[in-house]
Amino acid sequence: MIQFFAPDIASTQMLPEEEARHAIKVLRSHPGDILTIVDGRGMRYTCRLLSDNPRHADIEIISTEPQPPVWHTDITLAVAPTKNADRMEWLIEKVVEIGVNRIVPLLCRHSERKVMKTDRLERIAVSAMKQSLKATLPVIAPLTPIGEFIAAERADSRFICYCDDYIERVPLVRAYTPQARSATVLIGPEGDFDPVEVKSALDAGFRPVTLGDNRLRTETAALVAVDTIHILNQLSETQQK
Amino acid sequence: MIQFFAPDIASTQMLPEEEARHAIKVLRSHPGDILTIVDGRGMRYTCRLLSDNPRHADIEIISTEPQPPVWHTDITLAVAPTKNADRMEWLIEKVVEIGVNRIVPLLCRHSERKVMKTDRLERIAVSAMKQSLKATLPVIAPLTPIGEFIAAERADSRFICYCDDYIERVPLVRAYTPQARSATVLIGPEGDFDPVEVKSALDAGFRPVTLGDNRLRTETAALVAVDTIHILNQLSETQQK
Repeated sequence: MIQFFAPDIASTQMLPEEEARHAIKVLRSHPGDILTIVDGRGMRYTCRLLSDNPRHADIEIISTEPQPPVWHTDITLAVAPTKNADRMEWLIEKVVEIGVNRIVPLLCRHSERKVMKTDRLERIAVSAMKQSLKATLPVIAPLTPIGEFIAAERADSRFICYCDDYIERVPLVRAYTPQARSATVLIGPEGDFDPVEVKSALDAGFRPVTLGDNRLRTETAALVAVDTIHILNQLSETQQK
Repeated sequence: MIQFFAPDIASTQMLPEEEARHAIKVLRSHPGDILTIVDGRGMRYTCRLLSDNPRHADIEIISTEPQPPVWHTDITLAVAPTKNADRMEWLIEKVVEIGVNRIVPLLCRHSERKVMKTDRLERIAVSAMKQSLKATLPVIAPLTPIGEFIAAERADSRFICYCDDYIERVPLVRAYTPQARSATVLIGPEGDFDPVEVKSALDAGFRPVTLGDNRLRTETAALVAVDTIHILNQLSETQQK
């Protein structure tokens, strides 16, 4: 199945130009063909293409089906962007496939990257959402200073992963209680969090966690943290059955 | 800490040329400097550099420390290479960081890629081993026809992940018993396994599993499968404590 993305499909009844070009020029869809369209807010539409004009591709909505995420924890990944842009982009693709609700690029004291445009990350997220047959587009926040993020964050379960062992940390597999309503994980930059940042997170109620005994790159740690939440949720769901 | 890789360090007492160039030209190590060297077979050496000639970088071994993997299950990932070579290379890097013992590229009926050189994958594995401070280099097998692999495979726990639901599958989080002595996971190509391949795996005792309700790309599924084994092992280890 191929999904198209049209955030305003319900009001415009028309494919955005880029998606229309893909449907008509690349996939050679014709008037009368049935297309699957998602709005990025959890709704999937079965539509009939009415036009073969890629600049004005009208559609008719045949049916509407809500597609809530298949996971039940609202997951926020707050991560310092990697120096290498490819690694960050790869991370976005993978966590969107695996399932995440919000991604917050963090500006930390030891961040290698102090500015970041999120448009490209948005496009990667859209593509991963379509490809993995989701209908909800994760929120990608602008680059946010870590202090500001910590002060505002309200998730039920909040964790900070870091490498140094000057404060005792619990494995995330132990610290996370499955099926939390909402969970947030902080992942630091290549140079790790500054002790001041760790302290402010702990003071704000974040729990210090470790992902095990392997040294992981920033983007690998971020992926493993999100995946750990999913796996523990799955384990608890299948136990209940 | 920076690790160098020298598979024959114990017998040659000399860094291989590429590693010597990195130590002397890039990192500007001098005679007398202490280097950490791993042999890829589980041994870590603390050495003194004796020369500043990158073509003949003699070292003296000061101490030797076995570094067995931090996980206790012998993990084999048998995966059909992705059409896009980057995705396969990325996968190798990530599973080496997270921890794997053997990677077998599979030739399947629906494989998009029917030939594959493994030298580049080897180099990526070496680099990920060094970077994640491991001393054991996973084995990267040559491209192996799936029938041949299935017939020869003897791991205690054997799983085949596939997308189609014509045969009932169990979630891997349920099917895997933590701390298995050895575990093997088969991951199919973009076009999934052929039913004949699935049948031969099931006949040989592989259990059919699913990784959850998300549609994952080949390389994402492979990564999640390996990570699931690690997370369930970690959970069981921390329960025992």
